[in-house]
Amino acid sequence: MATNYLFNHRDHKFIYKEWLDMEKIFSLDAYKDYYTLDDIDTYLNLAYKLAKEVLAPTNDEGDQLHAQLVDGQVKTPPSFKNAYMKVMEAGLGPQSADRKTEGKIPLSLNCSISETLMAANMALVIYWGLTSGAAGVIQKYADSKYQNLFLPKMFSGQWSGTMNLTEPGAGSDVGDILTKAYPTDVPGIYKIKGTKQFISAGDHDLAENIIHLVLARIDGAREGTAGISLFMVPKYWVNDDGSMGDLNDIQVVSIENKMGVKGSATCVLSYGENDNCRGILLGDPPGEDGRGQGMKQMFNMMNEERLGVSSMALANAYEAYENSLQYAKERIQGRLITDPKGPRVKLIQHEDIRRMLLYQKSVIEALRALIVKTYYYIDLSHDSPDPAEREFADMMVQINTPLCKAYASDMVWKMVAEAIQVYGGYGFIEEYPVAQIARDCKIHSIWEGTNYIQSMDLVGRKFLMGQGKPFRKWLKEIKRFIEENETEKFAKEFSMLSRAFQAYQQILAALQGYLTSGKIAMMPLYSTRILHATAILYCGSLLLSQALIAAAQLEKLGPDHYDIPFYRGKISSAKFYIMNVVPKISALQMVIEEGDDSALGIPEDGF
Amino acid sequence: MATNYLFNHRDHKFIYKEWLDMEKIFSLDAYKDYYTLDDIDTYLNLAYKLAKEVLAPTNDEGDQLHAQLVDGQVKTPPSFKNAYMKVMEAGLGPQSADRKTEGKIPLSLNCSISETLMAANMALVIYWGLTSGAAGVIQKYADSKYQNLFLPKMFSGQWSGTMNLTEPGAGSDVGDILTKAYPTDVPGIYKIKGTKQFISAGDHDLAENIIHLVLARIDGAREGTAGISLFMVPKYWVNDDGSMGDLNDIQVVSIENKMGVKGSATCVLSYGENDNCRGILLGDPPGEDGRGQGMKQMFNMMNEERLGVSSMALANAYEAYENSLQYAKERIQGRLITDPKGPRVKLIQHEDIRRMLLYQKSVIEALRALIVKTYYYIDLSHDSPDPAEREFADMMVQINTPLCKAYASDMVWKMVAEAIQVYGGYGFIEEYPVAQIARDCKIHSIWEGTNYIQSMDLVGRKFLMGQGKPFRKWLKEIKRFIEENETEKFAKEFSMLSRAFQAYQQILAALQGYLTSGKIAMMPLYSTRILHATAILYCGSLLLSQALIAAAQLEKLGPDHYDIPFYRGKISSAKFYIMNVVPKISALQMVIEEGDDSALGIPEDGF
Repeated sequence: MATNYLFNHRDHKFIYKEWLDMEKIFSLDAYKDYYTLDDIDTYLNLAYKLAKEVLAPTNDEGDQLHAQLVDGQVKTPPSFKNAYMKVMEAGLGPQSADRKTEGKIPLSLNCSISETLMAANMALVIYWGLTSGAAGVIQKYADSKYQNLFLPKMFSGQWSGTMNLTEPGAGSDVGDILTKAYPTDVPGIYKIKGTKQFISAGDHDLAENIIHLVLARIDGAREGTAGISLFMVPKYWVNDDGSMGDLNDIQVVSIENKMGVKGSATCVLSYGENDNCRGILLGDPPGEDGRGQGMKQMFNMMNEERLGVSSMALANAYEAYENSLQYAKERIQGRLITDPKGPRVKLIQHEDIRRMLLYQKSVIEALRALIVKTYYYIDLSHDSPDPAEREFADMMVQINTPLCKAYASDMVWKMVAEAIQVYGGYGFIEEYPVAQIARDCKIHSIWEGTNYIQSMDLVGRKFLMGQGKPFRKWLKEIKRFIEENETEKFAKEFSMLSRAFQAYQQILAALQGYLTSGKIAMMPLYSTRILHATAILYCGSLLLSQALIAAAQLEKLGPDHYDIPFYRGKISSAKFYIMNVVPKISALQMVIEEGDDSALGIPEDGF
Repeated sequence: MATNYLFNHRDHKFIYKEWLDMEKIFSLDAYKDYYTLDDIDTYLNLAYKLAKEVLAPTNDEGDQLHAQLVDGQVKTPPSFKNAYMKVMEAGLGPQSADRKTEGKIPLSLNCSISETLMAANMALVIYWGLTSGAAGVIQKYADSKYQNLFLPKMFSGQWSGTMNLTEPGAGSDVGDILTKAYPTDVPGIYKIKGTKQFISAGDHDLAENIIHLVLARIDGAREGTAGISLFMVPKYWVNDDGSMGDLNDIQVVSIENKMGVKGSATCVLSYGENDNCRGILLGDPPGEDGRGQGMKQMFNMMNEERLGVSSMALANAYEAYENSLQYAKERIQGRLITDPKGPRVKLIQHEDIRRMLLYQKSVIEALRALIVKTYYYIDLSHDSPDPAEREFADMMVQINTPLCKAYASDMVWKMVAEAIQVYGGYGFIEEYPVAQIARDCKIHSIWEGTNYIQSMDLVGRKFLMGQGKPFRKWLKEIKRFIEENETEKFAKEFSMLSRAFQAYQQILAALQGYLTSGKIAMMPLYSTRILHATAILYCGSLLLSQALIAAAQLEKLGPDHYDIPFYRGKISSAKFYIMNVVPKISALQMVIEEGDDSALGIPEDGF
């Protein structure tokens, strides 16, 4: 009833065919025998058809019926199963996580397939989204026995996967988990004991079995994150011949009643209540130093999921935008301020509505550019024949990942507010789609590492890795873009971006100054805002690089070409973003240079 | 289950006893025989007790059971009736709207009573909040017959009231309503015909009768807002002896399924389906010029409701803040960045958590200062013996009203996101109170005139009224505050505020420049942001004036005084707000001077 799936791939096609050099990806050994540029349309169309016809019709049911816990088992809304199966049949489920089989789909393209599906029913996509991540870890770290036993069924969606980090007493501080693992007589098999919480798709009826990836501390290992190991814990034990054995000792304690994403089961799982939960260690047990390999292994999945979150946030924002746009084009209300006695006009003719729409559009396109480019770098980092390029691309991915996750998930909350505002009163009513999107999207700033965690990852780790060389390269890319492309046509925009670049360097200098003088606490106090400034600067350069292409196209195309409005829209997005959003960087420069630290000094009882 | 009512009046007491000159209000003829300063505590305590013990326990039920439409009648959640009656008995319902009876409570105090109650169950407060507004209009415009018939029962809460503007085809453009009124044989009595939508408390079982205030166009009156009249339309007709007669011809067509505020019934009402809906005209029918008095009359209620919305937004934000603060003080998580090997600490010891808490606290205190000061001006505008002071105060109220409504309602969405973020995953779970607050609060930017309407009221009307003299006075108050109080102690803050003041003047100059050169559309394009800059500048000055008092108190009090943390907290709020929020004004200066108008130029198909 509320869902009104709207999705247009024009911007994606621009990204793949006009902006990014996808020829380069498709000519890599990994892809060249399997894909051509024409497959981009084929895949996007397939995803659209599936999203529109199969997933979107299940979205209302997910929101209204929720996932339910019945007799200790999670029941998904009835329509989910068929939709899930259809996606598996189409090959758009966790198959993409298979990075070893030939013919895999490039991740740079896959991310837009995901965006297309997520926009239709994010709650349902989660059920196989986590399977992808879990299967990826298993493919990377499990020995061949378990790869053979688990992966074919996980990639096909017959089985699913989860990630288990959080516990009731340990969230962001994952090093403080209490779940323990005890060796058994069988090498590599451990007894798991502990409670995990906020486990997305922790139980359900869409797949026959679930392979839980569970962080636990092997008895005797050291404290903190360093002592943690990672285990594969099947819901049903898997016999060596591949058949399914007994139910493992895992109880679904409860599922959460959430503000949104209600179709997705968020479980509290208790492992080993009857002292009989068996898990399979990934990699090696801790040696004499007591160090486990679990955190590093899990981070493979985590980084992937972080990018997945950014795609979901983008998908939510885009769906809200397209719906508010449709409404603005249909709803007649009021008169033009420049023609107050004239006829009533459509909402979209009002200046403030246009501002709210273009704000959404420009940030969405900024996010999409950022996210797809990051996946593009992942493809290069995996498959480029040039080791230097692989290394460079990997560094870019590492820097961009926290930007994608935190910037997208903070912005969607602001964008969906504008979408609601375009609707007016109807925006607050559940019969229209934006209310659910608002409820759904708030999770993104929290899960897979809160946005503060992302900001500290950026400022405390990514800025400094490799003695800061990768980040300097990252910055230089922006600088070079400005220097090499500055043109009269976008004089104001290049000037604003240069100004922002200078301001950003001052921000880094101010931060450096605080750290040098021992004011360490200024880093976490400002890291969230620095992450935003970093993302905005980068997104500004990406959008402007798109605008240059759009402007060139406009010159080429005749004035009556059907695509003229699209290219003018691209230019408008870049201009709006750079002239209205990018100046925030200068404001942050002012703020951080003044260096107010009242939040540090206020006494606890003063709050 | 989810509701956890937390409310602390320390900041209110600071406002009333240390910041505002309440002696002045209490010494006015209207109050001096009835109130002393001591009554402030009495009333706030009474409100707290009622909120905590009576209202808060009904909040979960309102959210979960909703208001329901059963056989054409609205049933409120069962617990609402008793709570409603208790508030009426305590005299904290619509009684405050009675501005003629001696002994009325000053509105400057009443607004904090309302805030206290709204924070406990906003959905329930709405049922009498609209009665207040409707009764106020009736007291001002109805003849004595109807005042006598309706008002005692409305003020006591035995009857309630509504406001009916919106229709399915007309929202912000109220001049386009289709509801008609036809004269009958009885002078002053009209037949009403039309459909009204989004009518809060449009029907319910808490009061015996409802007096709907309905905008309609008398047959033959002119088009647009100028031709509209206002009618009192009782649910049950009221006989001349005060007894209740037949049901009037009003059908509850449906109630909305909303994202939040679910305990409040939002109705579609159909008037005169059987051609038998009688309404009583307020004031005079349109004369030969076809002009009705309805919009002017309704605006009395509207302005009051706009301030009411700001109080609700503040109450939502404050409740979210207090809950996130309590959680941050209890929840142990992680270690200090400056002591990574040390013990686990409470959330509130982490820098980013402190930033999020102080952000909420400072904006809340800014809003509270703004709102209470505005109500203070209302009291002066009504009851000051000095006509010049009355006029000045009224101008201040007119300028401040859109600031209160739009700034508070835009900020609550951002603040509640921070409250959720403090909770982490629990913030997304309905078992904790912040999720509901997030769902509830989104309505505030929409109802009683969208925030765009507020911004145009400010920029297009309030800036210009009286040839701009009142607004220049308003600005001068800020300038004078800076000039007269600048002190070494807050050198950075005064300097930042001066800088913002200069920037703000440049913003106004830029706007003026666009208008002078005929770029009228730049006004609605930038009005929302100008409203924010206006509110931020003013709030910065208010908080800094509070900080001066707090600093003086700190000097007076011994170092061990129990109130030291409070005053330090006040100073921290002012510093944080001025050094972190106020710089947005400079960013807007940069933006508006560049004057990007891409949102105007983008073709409709380019979105």
